[in-house]
Amino acid sequence: MTYCVGLLLDEGLVMLADTRTNAGFDNISCFSKLHTFHSPGERFIATMSAGNLAVSQAVINLIQDGIPDPETGKVETILSVPTMFGAAALISEAVRRVYRTHGEAMKQQDVSFDVSIMLGGQIAGRTLRLFHIYAAGNFIEATKDTPYLQIGEHKYGKPILDRAVTSETSLVEGMKLALISMDSTLRSNLSVGMPLDLLVYQIDSIDGVVQHRMEEGDSYFAMIRERWSKALEEAHRLIPPPDWLAP
Amino acid sequence: MTYCVGLLLDEGLVMLADTRTNAGFDNISCFSKLHTFHSPGERFIATMSAGNLAVSQAVINLIQDGIPDPETGKVETILSVPTMFGAAALISEAVRRVYRTHGEAMKQQDVSFDVSIMLGGQIAGRTLRLFHIYAAGNFIEATKDTPYLQIGEHKYGKPILDRAVTSETSLVEGMKLALISMDSTLRSNLSVGMPLDLLVYQIDSIDGVVQHRMEEGDSYFAMIRERWSKALEEAHRLIPPPDWLAP
Repeated sequence: MTYCVGLLLDEGLVMLADTRTNAGFDNISCFSKLHTFHSPGERFIATMSAGNLAVSQAVINLIQDGIPDPETGKVETILSVPTMFGAAALISEAVRRVYRTHGEAMKQQDVSFDVSIMLGGQIAGRTLRLFHIYAAGNFIEATKDTPYLQIGEHKYGKPILDRAVTSETSLVEGMKLALISMDSTLRSNLSVGMPLDLLVYQIDSIDGVVQHRMEEGDSYFAMIRERWSKALEEAHRLIPPPDWLAP
Repeated sequence: MTYCVGLLLDEGLVMLADTRTNAGFDNISCFSKLHTFHSPGERFIATMSAGNLAVSQAVINLIQDGIPDPETGKVETILSVPTMFGAAALISEAVRRVYRTHGEAMKQQDVSFDVSIMLGGQIAGRTLRLFHIYAAGNFIEATKDTPYLQIGEHKYGKPILDRAVTSETSLVEGMKLALISMDSTLRSNLSVGMPLDLLVYQIDSIDGVVQHRMEEGDSYFAMIRERWSKALEEAHRLIPPPDWLAP
């Protein structure tokens, strides 16, 4: 399984992915699910993927190699599409191409065509955007009302996002909340695992991106884990008992 | 859907259930999923159920009406079985009887035979125990290592339990944590809903049970919601940023 979370904040973008892939409990590997496509000064785009690794790798290859635009015939890549919406449409087309190539054969082997791609980024002078592209190639976009998107094992890490993330959340707080959300998921689902790939992008900076890999035992992640657990412990202790419960 | 959580603590037992049942998003009802079987001074037993309502109601009926013990032939009810293990075995047998009666017909209509029963309680002079009985009639028991059980929509409410509940957790803290776990679930899954049925049982008290229904707008639950969200907000703010992230 996989857990990836993306936050689209007024100050910028946070993207966080685990790196564990598994084909059964007895076959676990480490693959980066975060890919960046950076054209200095011009665009910064990143993707995260969940689902069948063969499918998501094929999609990432296709968007780098290029696909002819069905209307103009011009070959577009993730580094040439003029807008972020165009980037989402490019990934959508890539997913459908992979389905046409492999979908039927996978079905014959009872392997489901399962893929989710998260796409975030900004092209200079344009809006910072965050999308979620589904296996059918359709896609949605994060908005001010719901400024975060999740793919993969989303349930364990959702409550903290629901409670704390708004688009006004600062980039630093957003990063901490994404890590707390990941920690909740790591604790409950063994098929989500370290190391983690984190990306923090400041709006309108194009080249202002911090990318950080957190290995097993990372001191900052360990500190977040410990302080968060302690803070929760204190927090529920401070809530008074109800008056219908005798002391 | 449903969310029920039970905590087996050194000080006693906490059981909390929502009351929403649904047959599709357009058909939502309120049914209590918490049933108590109290013989003053002698035993206090409670069940919570998730899954198909027809199945769980049939099971609850059977354990009250009685089932002949396959070995002795004596008809046993939830109020006559000599031990909590016997109560779990009685529910197991009831689930299998309901399956024999309705399983095949349900399958023909593509309705899955889906039921989970949580069983907690104490018979005077014996150990307080908490069980989870599955649709196949097999069952597990909470232990010191994992002192809580969940049925239904368990993922959203699990992180807080994983972080904060041990068997040494006091009864009052356990009750608050169960409510926080429920709140996380209510926020994320519309098919889990108010009112809530809460039960707090003090070990070795038999008659020392507090049962409380929290209706929509319950002031204590609203207070927990608000204070918890505020405490989390403060907690993540207090975590320092990493040194690899420029301020």
